[in-house]
Amino acid sequence: MNLLPMLEPIREDLEAVEARMRSAVQETYEPLSSALTAVVGSGGKRLRPALVVLAARLHRWDERPVISLAAAVELLHTATLIHDDTIDEATIRRGSKTLNATWSRAATILAGDFMFARAAALAAETSNTRVASIFANTLMTICQGELRQMLSLYDWRGPRADYYARIYSKTASLFAAAAEAGAVLGHAPEERVQLLRSYGQHLGMAFQIMDDILDFVGDERQMGKPVGSDLRQGIATLPVYHYLQSGGDAALVDAALGRGLPDGASRAQAVNELVAAVVSSPAIEACREEARGFVREAARDVSSLADGCYGRALLELADFVVERET
Amino acid sequence: MNLLPMLEPIREDLEAVEARMRSAVQETYEPLSSALTAVVGSGGKRLRPALVVLAARLHRWDERPVISLAAAVELLHTATLIHDDTIDEATIRRGSKTLNATWSRAATILAGDFMFARAAALAAETSNTRVASIFANTLMTICQGELRQMLSLYDWRGPRADYYARIYSKTASLFAAAAEAGAVLGHAPEERVQLLRSYGQHLGMAFQIMDDILDFVGDERQMGKPVGSDLRQGIATLPVYHYLQSGGDAALVDAALGRGLPDGASRAQAVNELVAAVVSSPAIEACREEARGFVREAARDVSSLADGCYGRALLELADFVVERET
Repeated sequence: MNLLPMLEPIREDLEAVEARMRSAVQETYEPLSSALTAVVGSGGKRLRPALVVLAARLHRWDERPVISLAAAVELLHTATLIHDDTIDEATIRRGSKTLNATWSRAATILAGDFMFARAAALAAETSNTRVASIFANTLMTICQGELRQMLSLYDWRGPRADYYARIYSKTASLFAAAAEAGAVLGHAPEERVQLLRSYGQHLGMAFQIMDDILDFVGDERQMGKPVGSDLRQGIATLPVYHYLQSGGDAALVDAALGRGLPDGASRAQAVNELVAAVVSSPAIEACREEARGFVREAARDVSSLADGCYGRALLELADFVVERET
Repeated sequence: MNLLPMLEPIREDLEAVEARMRSAVQETYEPLSSALTAVVGSGGKRLRPALVVLAARLHRWDERPVISLAAAVELLHTATLIHDDTIDEATIRRGSKTLNATWSRAATILAGDFMFARAAALAAETSNTRVASIFANTLMTICQGELRQMLSLYDWRGPRADYYARIYSKTASLFAAAAEAGAVLGHAPEERVQLLRSYGQHLGMAFQIMDDILDFVGDERQMGKPVGSDLRQGIATLPVYHYLQSGGDAALVDAALGRGLPDGASRAQAVNELVAAVVSSPAIEACREEARGFVREAARDVSSLADGCYGRALLELADFVVERET
């Protein structure tokens, strides 16, 4: 496990989460068990389980349900990645072959369904009905957001609020749920449950904005995918909004998103041109400033909890999110 | 609602379940809400919600959680049908267009995911952790069974026990879960919870065997699909096992399943020939006898509960399952 330095105080907890995730997907038959073990083992920063653990560690520590829930949250995230890869027909993620690179699409869908179910079963193991409810409702939010994106209900000509709604559904909702449910399992007072939920949500918003920035300025080798992938999927993210706001070329945006492309024009070329234009505009810095704004909110949420090592970890995690390069 | 006559004593409960299902899928945006309302409204016999309600009605009646769970179980079933139709590329179900006949495959996958999540959220509304756990574990069993079938881990040359394992995963597990969870919500004594679970499981086995028989002898117009559809999907069901046991032609089975087809031979013709051969063999009657055997077990499970109108409904439901023609 590649542990982020500020998560050192919960290293053993996160190792227990890894073990729980592995054993959860191994409780089935071959070749499903090997395939899912490989998916689970291909890594990730484990930020969501860390939020569960830290929110609980700040209060009363009850290992079994917290570890189960942390594993459930990460498996849920992994299940959404499996379905995303099926939908995008992606064959590589985190430098490893995706499941649908080797399995049929139908089998991959079912493997994702199984992982959702496995995650829900782990959440049920907490024997906490509020947590089971948070879990199911977050999955609904994520699916609704994905569908909304797919049904092209987001339009860059629409209000920028749509962008925030989309990244809330896609990312911040699960960060918020992780921190909230961890606090619930720690028997935190309701006021602190809400503060931690708010922290998770702000952190998730900042995280996704940084992701969207990295899709323009990231190192392709470190990211494991080419820049401009959102544009190629027809999705305009925050850098595009800021680019337009600073006087960018709306026709170029349309062309890159594959709409109203003039005869003979190349969309791939439009994507490259738009990426270059956005990167050399003030848009990226404006986005970073927005991400830093969300991180400041996150830090404010937990300022009253930041005494001990777990509270400090939450603060450092917030800083990390806007400084990361992959 | 087309109510089966023996379910008359719980008509109002089942109407409440319909209303709960409709409101559950309407709590989202368009066009998802209309699409799912249409899927939910296209009918079905509502056997699974009836099991939940009857098992609870036999004990203490607590309307809210029971109606939520009954709706959750039927939505879970409906979600599996959405993914099945995506996988099979089916465009018609129950005489109506399927979701994937009009939506993209990717959107259909996500709509199914949303319905799983919605179902899990309804199950969580029961505030009963045992029920949430039964629910999640059943979804796991269903997914594992589907995958096992898809990965061709079932082979008609293998033990017949594989067939029973398959129909348990696919059908009987959810019937069992419905009756068990209904009894749990009715605060039934543990012994009766287990009897009702067993009843549901036996009923589900009989139900699926009848489904597999109807795939050979059913009226195509009433069924809304041609006979032999399992064979065309490469799946050998119980009638095939019995056909072979009574001296049937193994080469014809292989050909119908699309394996080792001789040069120039038509698989479609092999399917038609095999269907005709099975129907005129003693196989169908042998299968019916097996289904009746499961139904007798089901009746035995609830014989001690069969005094009142709810117990009688369980007995009559068992008879119905082996007499139905669609």
